[in-house]
Parts: sequence; structure tokens; C-alpha cells
Amino acid sequence: MTAQTKRPTIAAAEEILGGYFPVLDHGFVALVDYMGSDEDIERAARVSYGYGTRKVSQTRGLVRYLRRHKHTTPSEMVELKFHVCMPIFVARQWIRHRTANVNEYSGRYSLMPLLFYTPGSEDFALQSADNKQGRLPRGADPELHREAVQRWEATRRRAADDYEWLVGQDVARELARIDLPLSTYTQWYWKIDLHNLIHFLTLRADPHAQYEIRAYAQVMAGMLKRVAPLSYEAWIDYGFAAAPMSRAELAVLRTLIRAESTDDGATLAARDGTALDTAALREHGLSKREILELAEKLRPTETPDFELDLSTMQPAEVVGRKMQEAVPEVDAD
Amino acid sequence: MTAQTKRPTIAAAEEILGGYFPVLDHGFVALVDYMGSDEDIERAARVSYGYGTRKVSQTRGLVRYLRRHKHTTPSEMVELKFHVCMPIFVARQWIRHRTANVNEYSGRYSLMPLLFYTPGSEDFALQSADNKQGRLPRGADPELHREAVQRWEATRRRAADDYEWLVGQDVARELARIDLPLSTYTQWYWKIDLHNLIHFLTLRADPHAQYEIRAYAQVMAGMLKRVAPLSYEAWIDYGFAAAPMSRAELAVLRTLIRAESTDDGATLAARDGTALDTAALREHGLSKREILELAEKLRPTETPDFELDLSTMQPAEVVGRKMQEAVPEVDAD
Amino acid sequence: MTAQTKRPTIAAAEEILGGYFPVLDHGFVALVDYMGSDEDIERAARVSYGYGTRKVSQTRGLVRYLRRHKHTTPSEMVELKFHVCMPIFVARQWIRHRTANVNEYSGRYSLMPLLFYTPGSEDFALQSADNKQGRLPRGADPELHREAVQRWEATRRRAADDYEWLVGQDVARELARIDLPLSTYTQWYWKIDLHNLIHFLTLRADPHAQYEIRAYAQVMAGMLKRVAPLSYEAWIDYGFAAAPMSRAELAVLRTLIRAESTDDGATLAARDGTALDTAALREHGLSKREILELAEKLRPTETPDFELDLSTMQPAEVVGRKMQEAVPEVDAD
Amino acid sequence: MTAQTKRPTIAAAEEILGGYFPVLDHGFVALVDYMGSDEDIERAARVSYGYGTRKVSQTRGLVRYLRRHKHTTPSEMVELKFHVCMPIFVARQWIRHRTANVNEYSGRYSLMPLLFYTPGSEDFALQSADNKQGRLPRGADPELHREAVQRWEATRRRAADDYEWLVGQDVARELARIDLPLSTYTQWYWKIDLHNLIHFLTLRADPHAQYEIRAYAQVMAGMLKRVAPLSYEAWIDYGFAAAPMSRAELAVLRTLIRAESTDDGATLAARDGTALDTAALREHGLSKREILELAEKLRPTETPDFELDLSTMQPAEVVGRKMQEAVPEVDAD
Repeated sequence: MTAQTKRPTIAAAEEILGGYFPVLDHGFVALVDYMGSDEDIERAARVSYGYGTRKVSQTRGLVRYLRRHKHTTPSEMVELKFHVCMPIFVARQWIRHRTANVNEYSGRYSLMPLLFYTPGSEDFALQSADNKQGRLPRGADPELHREAVQRWEATRRRAADDYEWLVGQDVARELARIDLPLSTYTQWYWKIDLHNLIHFLTLRADPHAQYEIRAYAQVMAGMLKRVAPLSYEAWIDYGFAAAPMSRAELAVLRTLIRAESTDDGATLAARDGTALDTAALREHGLSKREILELAEKLRPTETPDFELDLSTMQPAEVVGRKMQEAVPEVDAD
Repeated sequence: MTAQTKRPTIAAAEEILGGYFPVLDHGFVALVDYMGSDEDIERAARVSYGYGTRKVSQTRGLVRYLRRHKHTTPSEMVELKFHVCMPIFVARQWIRHRTANVNEYSGRYSLMPLLFYTPGSEDFALQSADNKQGRLPRGADPELHREAVQRWEATRRRAADDYEWLVGQDVARELARIDLPLSTYTQWYWKIDLHNLIHFLTLRADPHAQYEIRAYAQVMAGMLKRVAPLSYEAWIDYGFAAAPMSRAELAVLRTLIRAESTDDGATLAARDGTALDTAALREHGLSKREILELAEKLRPTETPDFELDLSTMQPAEVVGRKMQEAVPEVDAD
Repeated sequence: MTAQTKRPTIAAAEEILGGYFPVLDHGFVALVDYMGSDEDIERAARVSYGYGTRKVSQTRGLVRYLRRHKHTTPSEMVELKFHVCMPIFVARQWIRHRTANVNEYSGRYSLMPLLFYTPGSEDFALQSADNKQGRLPRGADPELHREAVQRWEATRRRAADDYEWLVGQDVARELARIDLPLSTYTQWYWKIDLHNLIHFLTLRADPHAQYEIRAYAQVMAGMLKRVAPLSYEAWIDYGFAAAPMSRAELAVLRTLIRAESTDDGATLAARDGTALDTAALREHGLSKREILELAEKLRPTETPDFELDLSTMQPAEVVGRKMQEAVPEVDAD
Repeated sequence: MTAQTKRPTIAAAEEILGGYFPVLDHGFVALVDYMGSDEDIERAARVSYGYGTRKVSQTRGLVRYLRRHKHTTPSEMVELKFHVCMPIFVARQWIRHRTANVNEYSGRYSLMPLLFYTPGSEDFALQSADNKQGRLPRGADPELHREAVQRWEATRRRAADDYEWLVGQDVARELARIDLPLSTYTQWYWKIDLHNLIHFLTLRADPHAQYEIRAYAQVMAGMLKRVAPLSYEAWIDYGFAAAPMSRAELAVLRTLIRAESTDDGATLAARDGTALDTAALREHGLSKREILELAEKLRPTETPDFELDLSTMQPAEVVGRKMQEAVPEVDAD
């Protein structure tokens, strides 16, 4: 169902509006509303009247300039609203982003759908020794995974059973839910401006983020690409695929590269024969960890493309029905 | 120019979208974009799927319940974007509302239009003795006003002249502007969610707010009424025209009124013959000022109606042209 | 261990600083730092120089005036920092207050202490029919409670066992924790300004808040009372024990009470013989629910006293040790 | 006057607490309160009990790690409170930082001190052609400065005269002030957490910031250095003197430098004979402006030292008296 509007409207965003994209085994993300576009970022930056006709190349130049120089207020003028379903342990990381508006499904008021997240074999990994708060990049022994899944299933069956029993006894829902596991799916409406969304995506689409929240960030990056493609591109170039260089790292770069201004720009040239080994790098004040991080930044990387796969998109009714079916039947309301 | 959209669209808001409403002698407010409606507040509160068909009466009941009980997060799901032009001293009060997104016209980058606010005769008032930070409710001696206007005009002519001279000498704009008066008009894009807009309106449409900012709040209240009429109505009933009663004031009310529960509701009855004079009220812990405030709350009042006057609405081009003509011609860009 | 400081220092706050107050079966709240006092609210409101010597009665008058009239920015100038341990389902309600600074114990990085919340018999209640998101005010059948506790213990034993097994197999901690129940205790540092703390307390010390979070709010109200007693008192009078009256409720009050200004204040008198039954109240626009709420507001209530019980205060070492002992021993770090 | 406290106390901060440091011709900054220190950042990051005894080198390592990896929440646990006096046009830039708490001197309630900012000869500069919102790095013709000062003085004399006349006629203060120039000094209490202070300093101590606000940021950086020296150092290394490299810039660096992992770290070596001129850099996707920015980043720079000059520090009484003397005498309060 569509209507006529005088508001800025974006065809690529309309195409996915209200469509549900599956994430993990039972979760999803849907873009349910948006306000503004790349053009509105320019309009706000210029505080201009009405909707002029600017060339895309001019808008692109301004959007990139603003992002590069961290003039972020114009990009706060675009707003996106999502409907998301995710495991509670993911919701707990997510909610730390305080600049969004949130309405979560209430387990005090409503019965919880009994859906739980089970990590796939390839995502079930051992603790990383390097990254003390992460996991190794590849899956653990499949046998271990199998046993873990068996244990999870048994414990969840009990927890679900307890929940149904408590609710069946008419125990207050706010109490009945307290032993549901952190893997239980919850859902919310989440509204955020483009600037803060980009901050969220930078942290959560990053390889250091926990895999499960990253899966959501990747889909949302694809949605951003449709709402504001120039802002998305600027984010990839100056945010996601960029890297900061510290005072000491810049000093290191300067010993290896000569920069010279010219009439029409500049020339950068390697300082032939210069090299810095670990000892020399440490003398520049870099810690061992920083040395590894610097080498990492200078290694070739691939730029991801967060294009949405439209073939996975589902209508609201289908998703809503599935969720409803997972609610215990004891509900006599 | 309009387009098709799947987003929630509100006819009464579309009617004024992009139209400029004059405020004070050279200022304006325009609603330039909106996201969501009363129905979206309900949708967020219920975390529901897609767009169902609820009766208006159900939505109204929920919106009122939420506002009465200060469940404010669902109303953060609606967003409004304004283009506003106001004197700098008004902008300085306005900016204290930190929950909005703002892009202000930059006097470092662009030349300032030389437009200044002159209070009308009826708004030019003496200092209030009661309210130490306000003015008396009626205009001062017209003769005094005439002399003030003469002085203002003379000083502004000098300030404008200095500005044009400095800019003509190519002095940095960020310096040229520093002696413009606080009455100079500035402008910005201002985006805010409905919950925080209501907070702004409650403070700034209030009779205790400075007259000049109140003039803006009244127009914006009329815009809110078009975007979300049920939320507007709930705000009038539980916000704007409501009043808090302190612990001591409730105790006073209880000595004067008896409340009794009945099968189908309750009965409230005056306790015949009871009365409290100033001394008795002080014994309840009320200060002299609180006694006057309580009496004020119990006096009949009229509920305002912030209906917009559509006949004053102007197109963006007209307003933009007027603003452009007020920029000094020395600009050689 | 103490030091000399030129900062505003409050003896009553110093007395409890760093002391841990038990809440629920394994949780706690400790005030670990504070900045400013009632006097600093006055200082900020006056933007005054240095620390003058004002009378307490003057400070009290200003603090009460500011709170009554919702001039809240001066009270943002006082800051409190807490260390709190609470069940995850409580943490999930708490974190919705976005204006605080939070550092939570990380289950990705560290092993979780295996402590779970068990509701006591008197707090284990059935679903309320009136308040769709709450529980009845009294405990359910003790037999039901006994069975629930048995179930909880069995399910928790499994969940704890799974966690220890997964961690023992060196599975990534961020995965090992996902089936811990929402009743598991977590902890955080939480820092907030006085204005936003009062907002938190108003919502969470309220009888409509879930009992478990209310237990924390009550202790923190007692801490506020020690840091800023005048602000605490003003909050009780104009916040906690106050009630808003809607436009329609004020109209009802006016039919029952006559307010007359006098030379030295005002006189309030019952309008003899007037009464409004349910039908009459509905004609004023009140819904059935609002009628019950209004009668409730006019019924006598007791003002709570959130005084801390110092005899329960424990030193950090004792609490830290207990928490450490609850961490699974498999940790080989 | 000092007191005993159990709160974390920092000698270097106590030394300047309540001392007023002059900025510009009539302004100042004073640190009036603080909460926490570098150690408290570590404590929050570890959610630890009580105050342990960690080595400075461990705290330093953690503080630097957190800042490098943008784990910023622990640094929100430190809070600083300032009393600042600055021209209104500076205050208008400053207030855009929305994460602070502010109480500004009220021109509605109190009479304004008639102090105006006059740029010195060396700071009075022409508009920059490169940086469209800035000024040239050196002062304009002294003759031009002299004439500007004469004009300013004349206009300000009129504005001050008008203000005194209006106030003398008992015109409401909120109206009397509207023609004061933007160069008029105002003042406020400003409280902010360390993380957001660092964000403010990064933007406002930067050479691209307007000179006048930079003058304040530099003094506040010196105050930060005393409250949290390790955080200050980390900010210099990973914030102030660091630079981001975009996706394209990293690609350029990779063509000039080879990075190889080794057993104990890594070796970085220039790729002999490689060079990129403007055309080659453009092929990497860099705009002309980005090429100049990249060359700039690779040019040697000096790291500033924001050490405070204690000899300029003044007591509150002296500064308060001077401010009081600038208030018009017409005030009959």
C-alpha cells in the first residue's frame, strides 16, 4: 500500500521497506521507515531553502568532505527505523549504543516466543589467546559442537518447560521469564540517525565484534547503502576501511616516505633503502602489540560489499506468524 | 512535487510540508520532513509486525495511557524536522534543548543577512517584580518604546555598517561578525523526536517562557497537531494544561475532598464546611509562593488551541529570496 | 585511607563511601564516588565565584524552587558513582536509562560468577489482572513457590554445569555464556548526575516498578539522601510523593474547591454540597481508569523514608571475595 | 580550605583547583571540581572492588589500549567541572557539544557585565581562501586593525549606553540585552566526562578551530593533564597528534612500504624506487584536496605541550570582583 508524499523519497529504499531479512537461525532485520537522504545532508549543511537541483557529483563531494573532516551534524538529519529480532545476549551488547530510540517486546506484559539461538558448527569456536575477549576465527572440533548442541537443547527444553509451567500456574510473567537463557530471542523497534548508525556499524560490522552482532550489522549496512549510497560509500572509504595512525606511527611513516608539494598537488616517494625492524619500531615508542597492529594496517585487505540479498526478503505476515507460533499455548488471554 | 511511498503518510502534515509560517518580524518556522504518526507510536509500543488496521479509538486510548503514565519511549519513534529563522538571543535559549539535531547557518563560512528583531509596542514591557526573570504582561509607555526603537535602529545601523566595512576589507568572516547584536536573525535545521518536542513545547509554549521563543513554540504546536493529533491532544490534557500537585498540596486537597470507591468507579465529594486560610496552608508546609501557585492552579483557565493559520503560509522561494536580499552586497564570491 | 581535598566534601556521604549494601539474595549497591552537594546546585544556578557562605535555609529555598519549577540543569552539576550487582533481567530494565555512564563486567573477557537470583516466598506472586505488566501485591501459595524453586534449582544446576563444561573445553567465553539464565547476577559501575538519578528513582522506586529493581532504587534513594539531603527532600515533596493532575482532573477539583486570593496569600474552601459520581466524572472526560487513579491520588498515603540501614554495610574485600569464590574453578588464567 | 575525603584525590589537580586562568582579554577558565583519575578508568574497565594497588605502568598500558581501540566507556567514569568566561560568539560554538552539563549566567535575571572581546593585532586576520570558514594564519595590516578597533569601540559604547539606558528605564532585562554584541562576555559552569572532554579538545584545540575557542581548549588541555596525565598522554598520541588514513591513503602507503611479520614483531621497509605523483595519486581515487591533506600528514610536526602557566593563576575573589565592577551601576536591587 502506497501513498503520495512531498517528502524526499528514495526508490532503492522503498524497494525493501517493510521487508524482513533473516539473520542467524531465527532472527531478522527490517527497515520499517526512513527520513531523508544524501541530498538532505547537503541541504542541512547549507541550511538551504526548499529542494534545489544539485548535481550528484556536488552532493558526493560535500558528503565525502563532511565525513572526512568529521563534520557529523548534517548526517544526523537522516533517520532510519528498524524492526530487529535477536538473541538477548546480542541485545545486551546492542543496547549499549545509547543514542538510539528503542521499544523492546516486553516479557512483563507479553508471553515470550520460545526461540533460542544455536551457533552453527563453523561459528562454534574456541577462546582466542590473542584477543582476550574473542574467539578463534574457525570452528572447533565438530564433535565438541555436537555435544554442546545436545547440552543446549536439553537445558533449553527444561527452561522452556519451566516457563510454560510457571505461566500455566498464572505466576507473574515478570517472574516466569527470569530463568530463560540469554540465547532466547527478543525483538525491538530501533530508530537512529545516520551519523550514529554509522558509528554503530563501524564498531559492530568490524571483524573484532562478536560474530552474532556482526551478522546484524552487515545486513543493516546493506540497508544504509540503499537509503544513502553516497554516505555509505564515504563511510567505507573514511570509516570502515580506513585506519588511524598514531603520533608514533606517523613518525615511522615519515622515515620511510618523503612527501613533496608540487604546483598541482604532491608527490610521495619511498626513501630508498630505509627499513625499520622491531627494535627500531620500539624505539619510536610502539609497543609490541602496536607493531603487529601497524603491520596489519599495511597489509592488503579486501573491501567488503554489504549488498543485500533480496531473494531472502520475507513479508511481515510470514515472520509475524512464525513468531506467534513460538509463543506457548498456555496463554489464555 | 510528490512521489509514491510505502511509508506512513499523513494528509494534514503533507498539506503544510515545506510551507513557511512567519514568526516575529522577520522569522519563520517550516515543517520540512516528518517520520511516523500516532499509529507508529502504537506500533512501537506493541512491537507489532507490518501495518495493521486498528481503530482510532484504540490508538487514542493507548496514546493517552502512555502519556499519562510517562511511558515516553514509543513517542520517540516519531520524528519531525523544521527549518527555523529566529533572533540569536532566541537561538541561545533554544539550543539548550540538547536532544535535537541542529545545523545552523554558519557566520564563519557565509555572510549574515542583516535582519534584526524589533519588539512591537505591545511586547515591549518593563521588568516584572514577581517573576525575576520575566517582563510585565503589558507593554510599557509607547513613548519609551519609540525611543528604544530609535536607539536600536541607530546602533544596528552602525553594527551593520561595521560588518559591511569589515567584510569589504576581506577581514575573516568569523571576526567580522563578532559585533553583530544578539537581535540579528540566524537560522537552522532542527530535527527532534516527538517526545522531546513535547518537552520543548511544554517549557517554551508556557506563559513563563520569554515571549519571543513562545511565538515559535505556538506555531510548532500547531504543526505537531497536524502530524500526530492524538499525541497533541494527550499533551494538552496531561501536559500543557495539567499541573503537578506536591505532597503538601495533595494533603491540602484531601482535607477538602473525600474520595470513595464505588462498584463502577468512584465518587468525589466536598467536605462541607472545610476551608484553609493562609495560616492553615502554611501549616501544611506550603511557602507563601506555593500558596499563590496552588490558588492559581485552582482558578479556571482557557485551554489554548494551537491551530495554524494557513493563510500566512509562504513558499520556500519567496522566503529564501527575501533572506538573500538581506545579505550585504559586498560579497564577491 | 583518606586524603586532603579542596573539593566540596560531605560527611554523611563519606561515612558510607565504598561500603557495600546487600540487595536481594546476592546483589549489592555501593556508592564509590560523588561530586558536589546541594550547595553546588545553588552555586551553579547563580554561576557564582568560589565557595561563599550561604545559609542552609536559603539553599533549601532555592533547591525547592528549582525542583518545583523543573529548572533541572543546576542539579546536573552533582554526580554520583555506584558499583552495583544485580540479576541480568534487572540490568536489562536498568540500562534503558540512557543518560548514565556504564561499565559492565564482561562475560566475553572474564568468567561469570555462578550466582542466581531466587525470589523469596513473599515476592513470588501471581500475575496481576489490573496491571497487565505486574504481579499481585502478595505472595502466591507457598507450595507453588517451593515447586518453582525446585525447578529453578534443577535448571540452573544444568546451566551452570554446561557453562563449566564449555569453559573447561576452552570454548570461547562469549559463546559459553549464552545459555546462562536471566537470573544470573552481573555487575557494573554506574555514574549519573543527580537530576537523572532522580528521574531513575522516580520511575524505579515507584510501587509500579518491578519489585526487584525497586529494591535497588530504595537503597540508592538512601544514598542520595546522604549526598544531597535538600535535593532528596525536594524530590520526595515534588516528585516521589507528588502527583500530576490532568486538565480534566483540575476541572473536577475546581468544581469541588473554591480558591480565593487574599492580602497575604489565599484561602481554599470546599464548595459545600458538591459531589461528582462516576457518571459526572465521565462527563468531565475522565475514563474509568482515570477515575480510579484520581480517587487513588486523593487517598491518604504514607511518605516513605529511604534511610539506609548502616548495620548491613560490608567492606569491599568481603564482597569481592564472595564474588570471586562463585567463579568456576576451571579458569586456568 | 580543605577537608578529609575517602575519594580518589590527585595532588596536581588540587594545586590548581579553584584557581582562575585568564584567557583572551577578559575571559578565564577555572577547574572547580573533579571526580576520579586514571586509576578510576582502570577500575571501571575491570569492574573491580575497592582501590587496589596497581603499578602505574599497568594502568598506563590499559589506558593507552582503551584509547587506541576506542573503548571509551571507562573514560566516561572521570568527570571535570569548569567555570568559564568567554565571548558569546565563542559560547555559541561551545554549546554545540551537547554531552556536557551547563549553567549559564542569565541575562534575563541578572545584569550583564559590560565586557567585550577585542581581537589583538596579531589575531586580526583576513579571510582564508583555502579554508572557507577560517582566517589567514597571520595578522592583517595593523592600520586596518586600528580602524576596526576604533569602529568596535564606538559601536560598543553605543550598545553599552543603550543597555544602561534601557535597564535604567526598568525595561525587562530579557529585552534590554537584545542589542548587546556577540563579543560580549558571558560565563557558565560546564561539567563533562573525560571521554567527551577529549572529544571537545580534539575538535577545539585543533589548528582548524577558530582561534578564540582554541585559546580556551589549550588551557583546559593543561588542566586535563593534571587530572589524568596518562589519559592526556594517550590522547596526544592517539588523538590530537594522530591522523586517520582513508582506504585510498592506506592503498597508497602499501605501494610505498612493505610490511613483514617476524618472530618477534614486524619489519617495515620502503619499496625502493617507488613514487606516486599527483596523477598517480588521483588514480588511487584521491581528490586534489585529499592529496594536499595526505602530504600534510606526512610532513614533520611538533607535538604541543599544554602545560599550564601557574604564574597567571588568580584567586576567585579577584576575578569575581572584576566581573562585578563591569556590571552597570543602574542596578538598584
